Amino acid sequence: MVTKHQIKLINSLSQKKYRQEHGLFIVEGIKGIKEFLISNFQLGTLYTTKDIFETSKSKLVEISETELKKISNLKNPNIALAIFKIPEPVAPKSQGLIVALDDVRDPGNLGTIIRLCDWYGVSQLICSKTTVDCYNSKVVQATMGSLTRVNICYLNLETFIASSNTNVYGTFMDGENIYNSELPTEGIIVLGNEANGISSAVADQVNRRITIPQFGENKSTESLNVANATAIVLSEFRRRSIEK
Amino acid sequence: MVTKHQIKLINSLSQKKYRQEHGLFIVEGIKGIKEFLISNFQLGTLYTTKDIFETSKSKLVEISETELKKISNLKNPNIALAIFKIPEPVAPKSQGLIVALDDVRDPGNLGTIIRLCDWYGVSQLICSKTTVDCYNSKVVQATMGSLTRVNICYLNLETFIASSNTNVYGTFMDGENIYNSELPTEGIIVLGNEANGISSAVADQVNRRITIPQFGENKSTESLNVANATAIVLSEFRRRSIEK
Repeated sequence: MVTKHQIKLINSLSQKKYRQEHGLFIVEGIKGIKEFLISNFQLGTLYTTKDIFETSKSKLVEISETELKKISNLKNPNIALAIFKIPEPVAPKSQGLIVALDDVRDPGNLGTIIRLCDWYGVSQLICSKTTVDCYNSKVVQATMGSLTRVNICYLNLETFIASSNTNVYGTFMDGENIYNSELPTEGIIVLGNEANGISSAVADQVNRRITIPQFGENKSTESLNVANATAIVLSEFRRRSIEK
Repeated sequence: MVTKHQIKLINSLSQKKYRQEHGLFIVEGIKGIKEFLISNFQLGTLYTTKDIFETSKSKLVEISETELKKISNLKNPNIALAIFKIPEPVAPKSQGLIVALDDVRDPGNLGTIIRLCDWYGVSQLICSKTTVDCYNSKVVQATMGSLTRVNICYLNLETFIASSNTNVYGTFMDGENIYNSELPTEGIIVLGNEANGISSAVADQVNRRITIPQFGENKSTESLNVANATAIVLSEFRRRSIEK
């Protein structure tokens, strides 16, 4: 059974300020929960309609489907909802390939980008403080468990880049053709806001401007979606590492 | 002013069967509508709160913001909603690079894939009959106008592939590493369903199985999102055409 007090707490976690106040976030769905259970994340409470999880019984609460609907953020809740503890921030690594997001606002985009970092072995993701919170339940949902394998830090992007001692890549409409650029195995790759791209303050710190060129006769006026741009840029960086 | 009858008609267009019955679909937002107005698509009616469009006055209906809210599919409607005519299907081109979707269900994914085809100069997209309708308003919204530049056909994928005389590429977990594969400027690239990948009947027709390899130490169990996989695959195919 889930108490009124618990329902209120869980529902409050859809807001960033309450996630931060309580240090908790929500994971839904069997697969996602299983990935978090085998990770370093600490389980708070697991609410489920079926006990199919290998976890301490003291942290497990069996609930009805009606109760699950009351606490879920999904249209079609799936068996379980878990509350995990937000871990203490880990200082960012400064080695290897780092992805940095300047004001990415869409939860689906951030979730997909975390999944791409995981796929391409980028273990460090830096987010500007205006980037959507990675513990937002839509982000967690979209990462499909990848959130457990990528270290994410929210910090002042300009200060971070200024203190780094590496090449800084950024995607622009007028940069060097990425397919012909030399791309190393170390460096920071900056991706920008959905509507406005990279902010001018951060753009000033980019020393390698790159472009994903358009093909065909009909050049559209739109740019690529930021998650797709991330996919293509990471694919290009990693491909070169195979060739070397 | 918009009549009750018009509101009923417009609202019905959120369902595929009524779009097909009336041969009409919805485009929202200034930028999207402008792209359709300069394309070969035929305008039915343009409902707007501000007359900022260059179009025949006979097809323009000025409405209030309250009325716009009644007909819009968006949380925050933006000045205008246009009804365009669904064009007669154009026979698929069999030359060049063709993207074929086997049962892609998510409107956002299809919209993004249409945008990617436009970016990478793929003018022909083939969809299985079970793939989400490209005139679904969420798809139209996600294409950002690219729908006007890509020819989309819904047909029996197996029959289409069987009658084609070209290499058929498909993404699988166990295929050839895409970064080391020879990729031509002609062929069919098949992408599959979000949860199940390419169906076995279509998989049997794929003669070039390719894989986007994972990097890093932590190999995740998840595959990439189908739109990101499309981004990476198209990037790889087009990159080779530069080098040739």
